[in-house]
Amino acid sequence: MGRQAKKDKKSKSSSVPKNDVAEQLHDIYGSFQKCLDLREKYMRVSCQRVGDNPSNNDDWIIYPPPPPPSWPPPENPGRVWDGPKSIGSDFIKEEVPIPGMWDYLFELDDTGVYQVYSSKEDMDAKRPIVNVPKPKEYFQDLDFVFSVISDGPIKSFAYRRLKYLENKWSMYTLLNEYQELADSKRVPHRDLYNVRKVDTHVHNSACMNQKHLLRYIKAKVKKTPEDVVLSRDGKDLTLEQVFQSLDLTAYDLNIDTLDMHAHKDTFHRFDKFNSKYNPVGESRLREIFLKTDNKIKGRYLAEITREVISDLEESKYQMAEYRLSIYGQSEDEWDKLADWVVENKIFSPNVRWLIQVPRLYSSYKAAGTMHNFEELVQNIFKPLFEVTRDPSKHPNLHIFLQRVVGFDSVDDESKAEQRIYKKYPFARNWDISMNPPYSYFLYYMFANIASLNNFRQKRKFSTFVLRPHCGEAGDTDHLISGFLTSFGISHGITLRKSPGMQYLYYLSQLGIAVSPLSNNALFLNFERNPFPNFFHRGLHVSLSTDDPLQFHVTKEPLIEEYSIAAQIWKLSNTDMCEIARNSVRHSGFESKIKKHWIGENWYLPGVPGNDMGKTNVPNVRMAFRYETLQEEIDMFKRRKKTRQQRQRQQRVATNASGEQTEQPK
Amino acid sequence: MGRQAKKDKKSKSSSVPKNDVAEQLHDIYGSFQKCLDLREKYMRVSCQRVGDNPSNNDDWIIYPPPPPPSWPPPENPGRVWDGPKSIGSDFIKEEVPIPGMWDYLFELDDTGVYQVYSSKEDMDAKRPIVNVPKPKEYFQDLDFVFSVISDGPIKSFAYRRLKYLENKWSMYTLLNEYQELADSKRVPHRDLYNVRKVDTHVHNSACMNQKHLLRYIKAKVKKTPEDVVLSRDGKDLTLEQVFQSLDLTAYDLNIDTLDMHAHKDTFHRFDKFNSKYNPVGESRLREIFLKTDNKIKGRYLAEITREVISDLEESKYQMAEYRLSIYGQSEDEWDKLADWVVENKIFSPNVRWLIQVPRLYSSYKAAGTMHNFEELVQNIFKPLFEVTRDPSKHPNLHIFLQRVVGFDSVDDESKAEQRIYKKYPFARNWDISMNPPYSYFLYYMFANIASLNNFRQKRKFSTFVLRPHCGEAGDTDHLISGFLTSFGISHGITLRKSPGMQYLYYLSQLGIAVSPLSNNALFLNFERNPFPNFFHRGLHVSLSTDDPLQFHVTKEPLIEEYSIAAQIWKLSNTDMCEIARNSVRHSGFESKIKKHWIGENWYLPGVPGNDMGKTNVPNVRMAFRYETLQEEIDMFKRRKKTRQQRQRQQRVATNASGEQTEQPK
Repeated sequence: MGRQAKKDKKSKSSSVPKNDVAEQLHDIYGSFQKCLDLREKYMRVSCQRVGDNPSNNDDWIIYPPPPPPSWPPPENPGRVWDGPKSIGSDFIKEEVPIPGMWDYLFELDDTGVYQVYSSKEDMDAKRPIVNVPKPKEYFQDLDFVFSVISDGPIKSFAYRRLKYLENKWSMYTLLNEYQELADSKRVPHRDLYNVRKVDTHVHNSACMNQKHLLRYIKAKVKKTPEDVVLSRDGKDLTLEQVFQSLDLTAYDLNIDTLDMHAHKDTFHRFDKFNSKYNPVGESRLREIFLKTDNKIKGRYLAEITREVISDLEESKYQMAEYRLSIYGQSEDEWDKLADWVVENKIFSPNVRWLIQVPRLYSSYKAAGTMHNFEELVQNIFKPLFEVTRDPSKHPNLHIFLQRVVGFDSVDDESKAEQRIYKKYPFARNWDISMNPPYSYFLYYMFANIASLNNFRQKRKFSTFVLRPHCGEAGDTDHLISGFLTSFGISHGITLRKSPGMQYLYYLSQLGIAVSPLSNNALFLNFERNPFPNFFHRGLHVSLSTDDPLQFHVTKEPLIEEYSIAAQIWKLSNTDMCEIARNSVRHSGFESKIKKHWIGENWYLPGVPGNDMGKTNVPNVRMAFRYETLQEEIDMFKRRKKTRQQRQRQQRVATNASGEQTEQPK
Repeated sequence: MGRQAKKDKKSKSSSVPKNDVAEQLHDIYGSFQKCLDLREKYMRVSCQRVGDNPSNNDDWIIYPPPPPPSWPPPENPGRVWDGPKSIGSDFIKEEVPIPGMWDYLFELDDTGVYQVYSSKEDMDAKRPIVNVPKPKEYFQDLDFVFSVISDGPIKSFAYRRLKYLENKWSMYTLLNEYQELADSKRVPHRDLYNVRKVDTHVHNSACMNQKHLLRYIKAKVKKTPEDVVLSRDGKDLTLEQVFQSLDLTAYDLNIDTLDMHAHKDTFHRFDKFNSKYNPVGESRLREIFLKTDNKIKGRYLAEITREVISDLEESKYQMAEYRLSIYGQSEDEWDKLADWVVENKIFSPNVRWLIQVPRLYSSYKAAGTMHNFEELVQNIFKPLFEVTRDPSKHPNLHIFLQRVVGFDSVDDESKAEQRIYKKYPFARNWDISMNPPYSYFLYYMFANIASLNNFRQKRKFSTFVLRPHCGEAGDTDHLISGFLTSFGISHGITLRKSPGMQYLYYLSQLGIAVSPLSNNALFLNFERNPFPNFFHRGLHVSLSTDDPLQFHVTKEPLIEEYSIAAQIWKLSNTDMCEIARNSVRHSGFESKIKKHWIGENWYLPGVPGNDMGKTNVPNVRMAFRYETLQEEIDMFKRRKKTRQQRQRQQRVATNASGEQTEQPK
């Protein structure tokens, strides 16, 4: 309708004077509503809504189980949680039930999307269990949203609504600050420190801080120098030999030599930031210490990760969703990654995983290891359909996937992109050296996840959400792709440049994990970060660390992130508790766990969804947020009515001038 | 000369056209030089220079001794430091030698300053061991500096020099950034985390973070509810009873109820900030948990302090200078405070003490407990002269004073002050209800410390420096008082308003402990804090926390302070190491310890004073700082010569026109 609206306006502007404000508003409302409906369609078809995921059912069994609640004190004291245990000690692989095979079938279709069929007949008749939007439909929807948010009147409208939301917040906060404080004080036990916070965006290879990694490396060099850690030119090298070849001793090493902190020299230099992942600038050390798939089968990274998780568990109230990489260079990556997690028993009630897929097609193409984009899709998704069809063939992968909550898409968004106009080549036809644009990547992630999720939902396995890096830099169309395809996004700071898009993100309450310290080192100075505006206006934002190794200084990166935001933007304790609550809602932890953390009805909007005793967010705040949002959404409906009323009135008036044949109902 | 210069200019401006720029510059240089000379006079007479303090001598014995160096590994492994011990376990009171009495005499003179005499004859003849400037002289000197920094041409001159210094820094850093990085990398072992940092400004009652205090209070209420902690109306109350009277349980308590975090509601409300020291808004709880002198003899505060110190010792590289209060309400305060420290064995190689004296005369006067200002001076200083004369009468105080490095003067600087013009009433004549102005307070602190220091120096006891709160708010004359009387100051952020004063602080390299997070909550938003400008221009600044209880969120307040400064102001690792080095230089730790921490010749300016292996500050940075400062100071000298040369030339020229009798030498 937006396009239609645009055309209408165009023709109108040339013929009829545009003084019918109500009419214009009606068009605007219609366009926004259509955008929201589109998003709803994509979420529904891909099973990304909260209720779609079997792991959000109350009968879902989390294994190993989370620690029992410590309050109120249980009657049978045997159940009391007696502090964190050794990570993974409660995981016994043999105890995990591994379901058998289903005779569903799947195949890659012409466009490059896996289709699942419940039987051979369905397959022959091309009747998949779900009709995922084709590339053409997706790009047309993308264009539609694009036309809406680039429309002048819509832009000013959205801009004014956002300003209005911000002013409304100011009024609210001036009038209710003391009330909120009084309410918070009345909640026993809870405060900023012991409400649950999820670090919604953090990369596993950078989850430790620089000091931690340094200490670990030093300890390894001192204590187990004879570990064989690398093969080069057919020769095995010990850790000692590697360090000798670098002319370094454990004592020499320091943070400066390690040189992994992105700080002054990475601003607008994503390339340099990427190379910071190499300790001492040596990719060998990155391979040894920060990879899951290497000579030592990722043992070092597993050990460090367990140490970091142990700190998380000790903090009790801090959780994290770590990103692990699947590159899509070969099909066995999944099994290796699953082995890494399962064999090293990296299971914790405080941790869930996301899979990050770097957008590196052009590199593989350049290296000659890949011919077209379809191969990438195949390497990433085929094993997932296989394991969903028959978990017993990949038991570790099946176990691992129970703890994977979603997918992330990562790379430098600021890279220049060539646009695709008229034609949308299918994956197998994308065989040029150039990387496909962001929106193309996201489509193939989305479409295959949609098929997969429907399959997994039928099998009552956990489903996945798409939560890509989106809007860290680059053009607005990244944000549109994210809006259509993704449950949530990371960063989103370019929303500051597009009021229309920002307003849509507000209306849909799409979760945004912002990492201001990361932005500060890479793309946007802290004081210019739009996070406070987003938060005031009511966008569903949370705070996350991205890469503690690169950006943080203290031992508690997430608290550091909260602290700096609070200090610089003068966030109140209630603000921080609301952000913490957002982070839990936005996260992929199972509904059962969220109920324990933030309330029995956490998925409901407004006051009914808030359990102040758990979240420490006063109901008055929740009511304000809910009513404000509802007012915006109702506005669309009211205006629609008004127009119908007006039409009816017009009709009545017309008839009245002749003969009145119809009574208004 | 400045006043003279001003008069000269005045007369000149009316008669002669002021085109002699060199002449004008000469006047300016002269004025600055005179100010610097004045400061030198005050520092000398009060023994505040580094070399004046016997505790900076190499033969000074620190008891209990600091841990031996852990690197290089000592040959005799018995000496290796095996981690932090229980605080104070190495302190045995009986081992401390307590010197006997000296027959020096002291008495309070008419002006309100203690004078020390080496004999009865000297006393009768009024020949004190040192001639401390009288109030009149002090106020005249104050006026002189004031006239200098308020002079138009001098202000523009200073402003331009400061801009010049800032630009010079930019040039330096653009050209040397990579060199610095390369240099830092070459230093084995050292980095930002393991260079010594002293928290140069932190109040003992607020040295723990809010979470720590909360946890401590909860534990006490649960574990020892029967402790008798308070007497009210002749009745003893247990901790349980106190909490019952407040209608609170340990479980109820949270950070919000505790309400001690100064954040949004204290901006420009120092009064409110002060009342934040009361847990749950209850002064009873403040008395129980945060006072050294109460029913339980400060046992709780001692326990928390020991816990905080234990964390410091574990960090190994973080030190602190805690402020303890002497109010001056009675003479026995000193003995009680000394008992608190000594009996609770609060001795640590990571901690030294400063004594803060709140400027509360008007409160005591209003309460009727004091008649005139002299009584305050007496209560504060008499015990110190007594214990210096005869340590054996107050052995605990003598032991305590060995760890006290200086005095602080605290209160709300933003309070309106009535100025004193023509007359400077002596302390005993100040009997009005009004508080004396800041400069008056500082004079009496200074003058008495000067007498005391000279006495203590003769006895080879440690001497004290004056390091008041100064320039947190209020008028410029605070900064002038600080400039004349004080070794260092805390805050100093109002220097941004006075270029002349700021330039003098730069030239004298007066140590400034800035606390940007504290300012952010009280007086000045973080992004407007002048710290980065001060640092770039080369003022001798360090970072300090002020009140972790009120301002900080993480478990590592000092690192949090560094982290936020680094993130927001994009400080490099070298910058942070330089700031850390400044903090050690600025601090009151004994020279012997500073030698171990930052280098054998730490007191020398420039490269010779830098030990890069310890400080991690590249010599190229030190050379830049030194040469820049030297250039400013040399400018004064060069110009002086030029004038002499010109005069000589003039004379020669005059003679040449008649008869040449003199050769230029």
